[in-house]
Amino acid sequence: MTYQLYYWDGIQGRGEFVRLALEEAGADYRDVARENGGVEKMMAFLEGRGGHMIPFAPPFLTDGSDVISHVANILHYLGPKLNLVPADETSHFFAHGLQLTITDFITEIHDTHHPLGTDDYYEDQKREAKIRAGRFLKSRLPKFLEYFESILAHNPTGPAHAIGGRLSYVDLSLFQVLEGLRYAFPNALKRHEPSYPNLLKLHAMVKERPNIRAYLSSRRRLAFNESGIFRHYPELDQDT
Amino acid sequence: MTYQLYYWDGIQGRGEFVRLALEEAGADYRDVARENGGVEKMMAFLEGRGGHMIPFAPPFLTDGSDVISHVANILHYLGPKLNLVPADETSHFFAHGLQLTITDFITEIHDTHHPLGTDDYYEDQKREAKIRAGRFLKSRLPKFLEYFESILAHNPTGPAHAIGGRLSYVDLSLFQVLEGLRYAFPNALKRHEPSYPNLLKLHAMVKERPNIRAYLSSRRRLAFNESGIFRHYPELDQDT
Repeated sequence: MTYQLYYWDGIQGRGEFVRLALEEAGADYRDVARENGGVEKMMAFLEGRGGHMIPFAPPFLTDGSDVISHVANILHYLGPKLNLVPADETSHFFAHGLQLTITDFITEIHDTHHPLGTDDYYEDQKREAKIRAGRFLKSRLPKFLEYFESILAHNPTGPAHAIGGRLSYVDLSLFQVLEGLRYAFPNALKRHEPSYPNLLKLHAMVKERPNIRAYLSSRRRLAFNESGIFRHYPELDQDT
Repeated sequence: MTYQLYYWDGIQGRGEFVRLALEEAGADYRDVARENGGVEKMMAFLEGRGGHMIPFAPPFLTDGSDVISHVANILHYLGPKLNLVPADETSHFFAHGLQLTITDFITEIHDTHHPLGTDDYYEDQKREAKIRAGRFLKSRLPKFLEYFESILAHNPTGPAHAIGGRLSYVDLSLFQVLEGLRYAFPNALKRHEPSYPNLLKLHAMVKERPNIRAYLSSRRRLAFNESGIFRHYPELDQDT
């Protein structure tokens, strides 16, 4: 069965967390909205012409007649099928909880450039974005990174992975978060990173996975840009 | 087995979505942080003294040695056990996707009074809160309510429920969202509500469920207040 991923073309965005899992597993999938006529197919689902399981927003995944929406839900669905989460139910719910904390982290990263509302331009909220980004870098960024460093340090099987003794979709998402933060806030990250040695090791490990390495150097991996979640606005990359 | 819910005392907050499910089902549970010494027990988990499945923040639920964190994850875990979601896997993932959209809605509701950061007081971001709340009421609130109205209208078994032909945890959460919005934005809701007749009927139906009615009139149900997610600041309840 071919998985059909639906997400906006032109950005990594939230869809990228799903792509990394599909790519690592070598899964058979189509990135529908990047194909000819694909955006129209995506809009049909969003407008209720694809059955009653209407997604609120991309990304969503279809698998046969099932429609699964929200990144964390998609990864929770794919995890056991792609062998990217330990087999027991306890681990499924623990992994999903970690992924939902990553979801919250990503929302806060996004909101550094959109504190007043997602429907308006960054240029119309630059003053407020600078305040919010400053507070984010000072307190929220360290809080989230310390949390995940601590999750790695507390793993009973060792600090190489978030859950259990081998790669999971949570590890892949943590890699992507660090990639994105380095792009968006290079100066801040240079100061913060040395405090999180386990996260840095995990990032380097994921980057060297053969399927991930092949994906990152392929045309399927888009570059970061200022339409996605992780945006590099030098004025927000402040010394706090 | 007694479920142990951990959430801050003194507010409904995010914990309330879990309480409504436990109360509707007549489940055996303890609201740990409201008991003597309970906050200390909650902090032990948050500080890594309760095993390696460390939650990022309350609410979290323990069931034996399992620790489940994030509201939507807890409801996804409890749904089949409390008979609050249809039995098939497709419905589990559809219900969970809906609950994650409710999660996003709640975050946006919260951020109307905290656009610049969650660590700072409302009083220090009133100007920005007024801008964000105005944009929320004008575009985001209708977008979310229209979405859920449409989910009800598209339900193949009829518009009385979000999923299938009987009550699910998603219905309970939609009830709570409407309760909270009416408290926070009474004027705006008076204008908006008539556009969402199915949501209004669902709200009235949930309110009359015997277990929910008993819960709402009990001392276990705290009143809304200005420390929770839904806060009534008249200056934010604007005519848009």
